[in-house]
Amino acid sequence: MAAITLERILALQAAYIRCIDNNELEAWPDFFLNQCLYVVTSAENHKAGFEGGIIYADTKGMLIDRIAALREANIYEKQSYRHILGLPHVTNNGGGSAESETPFMVVRVMHDGQSDIFATGVYLDSYRVEGGDLKFAKRLAVCDSSRIDTLMALPL
Amino acid sequence: MAAITLERILALQAAYIRCIDNNELEAWPDFFLNQCLYVVTSAENHKAGFEGGIIYADTKGMLIDRIAALREANIYEKQSYRHILGLPHVTNNGGGSAESETPFMVVRVMHDGQSDIFATGVYLDSYRVEGGDLKFAKRLAVCDSSRIDTLMALPL
Amino acid sequence: MAAITLERILALQAAYIRCIDNNELEAWPDFFLNQCLYVVTSAENHKAGFEGGIIYADTKGMLIDRIAALREANIYEKQSYRHILGLPHVTNNGGGSAESETPFMVVRVMHDGQSDIFATGVYLDSYRVEGGDLKFAKRLAVCDSSRIDTLMALPL
Repeated sequence: MAAITLERILALQAAYIRCIDNNELEAWPDFFLNQCLYVVTSAENHKAGFEGGIIYADTKGMLIDRIAALREANIYEKQSYRHILGLPHVTNNGGGSAESETPFMVVRVMHDGQSDIFATGVYLDSYRVEGGDLKFAKRLAVCDSSRIDTLMALPL
Repeated sequence: MAAITLERILALQAAYIRCIDNNELEAWPDFFLNQCLYVVTSAENHKAGFEGGIIYADTKGMLIDRIAALREANIYEKQSYRHILGLPHVTNNGGGSAESETPFMVVRVMHDGQSDIFATGVYLDSYRVEGGDLKFAKRLAVCDSSRIDTLMALPL
Repeated sequence: MAAITLERILALQAAYIRCIDNNELEAWPDFFLNQCLYVVTSAENHKAGFEGGIIYADTKGMLIDRIAALREANIYEKQSYRHILGLPHVTNNGGGSAESETPFMVVRVMHDGQSDIFATGVYLDSYRVEGGDLKFAKRLAVCDSSRIDTLMALPL
């Protein structure tokens, strides 16, 4: 199979963060394959080879449950978030799948106007085309800081 | 007419912020069609359906006037600004026009070396080709924070 | 010779910052031609026409020496860095070479979890294809702030 075009990877990355920043979280699990891996971890833990993380899900169903729980908790969020992505570095591509590394930054915006850097890091992604759609087979969100808010509700 | 290529949209977005950050503001209105809409507003107001905003202009002439006024005021700016854009998410494309959503962040750099996040948000854009050039038919700069500096002189 | 594709420029830019943020600094000089120009300077100095800068190197050998010195100094870094690039604005392209301007932001992440904006600015780049590879003939990292940390060890 042919390589996945950069344009298609860019489109998926842009659609993903738009989904989160627009608070359309119910659509978020659809970016993943049914059999997938979604992990949020720290650079330190990732480097040490720990497979777990702050958040760990290995099926799309777990991602759906996560959002359902989040909505039920119905936390009144005084802040909003804004993801800014750097350019993806495609490390592997061919046979209908691809891998890339994409730097990210998340800004937290308090309603009183104050903004600060909430998280930075890199997405380590694997993609696969399924039923004509490009989806994440794996997304490791590796955060630069070792102090990640364990109450973090929002997907990265 | 054919769809507008992503490459062309990327080029316009990159040229637009370069124009502002290089302080070549007299060239800024040329990114817009004569009949255009340029609005700076907050996410809260945009969600509530308010059409107005902190800044509202619906002709290119108004944009030209705005820059002229800005230059006359001749404010001594102790700070500079740096726009960083995320990847555009193209939501509509065909028939010689397109729409996209592009996250932005603006960093304010004080001359003593201090930098902070001045604004984050999303550009909601409509494009159209006119006379061979891709231009903005509409640019809504929707800021995440509800506290936008009303003295904001610089275009977003 | 043909123009250099945007895709190729994006790939080089993404690979460059990945190399730095992954601390694979020994590979960093390979992004440059043997005869090259690498300068880190401030917007103020650049505007004033000063050719020098905080960092100045005009051969790849000097870049290699720089990294060797950095590794020998063996500074224990309590912080890490994350580069986020904006979209390149290609200002010139043809005959096997190209020029572009790319906004950058560098976030410094302290190990206690605090993050701040370390630097913002613009890369003024010239590229040339040599032996089939796209490399930097020139990279001026023009920082917005005039107060650049003169102890700055990390390449920008």
